Amino acid sequence: MVQTQTITLDSDGGFATINVTDPLRELLAASGIRAGLATVYYQHTTGGVLVTEQEAGVLADLEDVLQELIPVERDYRHHLRAVDFNGHAHIRAALFGPSVTIPVADGQLLLGRYQEILVLDMQTERAPRSVVLQILGE
Amino acid sequence: MVQTQTITLDSDGGFATINVTDPLRELLAASGIRAGLATVYYQHTTGGVLVTEQEAGVLADLEDVLQELIPVERDYRHHLRAVDFNGHAHIRAALFGPSVTIPVADGQLLLGRYQEILVLDMQTERAPRSVVLQILGE
Amino acid sequence: MVQTQTITLDSDGGFATINVTDPLRELLAASGIRAGLATVYYQHTTGGVLVTEQEAGVLADLEDVLQELIPVERDYRHHLRAVDFNGHAHIRAALFGPSVTIPVADGQLLLGRYQEILVLDMQTERAPRSVVLQILGE
Repeated sequence: MVQTQTITLDSDGGFATINVTDPLRELLAASGIRAGLATVYYQHTTGGVLVTEQEAGVLADLEDVLQELIPVERDYRHHLRAVDFNGHAHIRAALFGPSVTIPVADGQLLLGRYQEILVLDMQTERAPRSVVLQILGE
Repeated sequence: MVQTQTITLDSDGGFATINVTDPLRELLAASGIRAGLATVYYQHTTGGVLVTEQEAGVLADLEDVLQELIPVERDYRHHLRAVDFNGHAHIRAALFGPSVTIPVADGQLLLGRYQEILVLDMQTERAPRSVVLQILGE
Repeated sequence: MVQTQTITLDSDGGFATINVTDPLRELLAASGIRAGLATVYYQHTTGGVLVTEQEAGVLADLEDVLQELIPVERDYRHHLRAVDFNGHAHIRAALFGPSVTIPVADGQLLLGRYQEILVLDMQTERAPRSVVLQILGE
């Protein structure tokens, strides 16, 4: 059995983190699936999905470290087309990956105590962002 | 068909790597599943799952490179709460991700010749760590 | 229902990116599966799978940034065995991960408009590379 839902998030861009744990739990509950695999998939190339403790310090540290290692202001070749100026977001996104999979058992997401599922959007401007939620199982 | 098992690892923390390839193979064999998807999911926010060659040099290099890029001793904002001092582990974990999925066919994990599945625990102290193993298929 | 296919890519190594979106779409169409999960799994420890915009600038930027952060020429301990000299590729591969999963609905991969699925091979020489494609669903 498979239940798939695409949701649209209203993101500020920049370094926006949006918690999708509750929408995923709601889809799981509605699906009636008791055991299987949950997937969160981000449909853009300038962000990704991460699982972390949703503590303000952790998210600020993540932005700081990424800014040190893969800064927004670098001369990216992607900018030479003069179409968009989000080179940093593409490189960071390639490292995060677009999806996370989480096992389901007894009708529950098997997340650890401190784990929250966040979509990270690093697009340079405000835009609607599409995320696919899926529960597959029995 | 879905088989899910949570195992507890006795980890030293720091930069501990624990091979879970054999436990996953045992679950696969016991499940009777011949084709599908295997998932390893780490239930903590201070480590992750990786697939690599389990050679001492590779693991030492990985620790060295991470220490250069995302050092243990940095002034992380996560530490300002004075609850725990594992900011580096959260940032690194966000990059690794909590899970890996591996296809199964003919009753075998389709790992490459040198690929081993390791849990990487970067928590600052010794602690039991929970890992979910799952086989989903037919 | 599960359909699994292993394909062999003729890669130049170095920093080779090979698009596997079309082979995955073909397997999906041939499988008759309408809803489920697609997986691309790389069977080597010196590369991985990424989803990105396949724009020449993005791929050049990715190589430049990785060369700055995890350079080819570093004194990796992995090289001390004098067996191979691909330490950088192992570290980078551990960060990318060997697999990507993509939801399927209405018989289509739910990729975003600019998303392409690329295998990234960073082995130091030309070699055939094995990639597993899998569609699981109903």
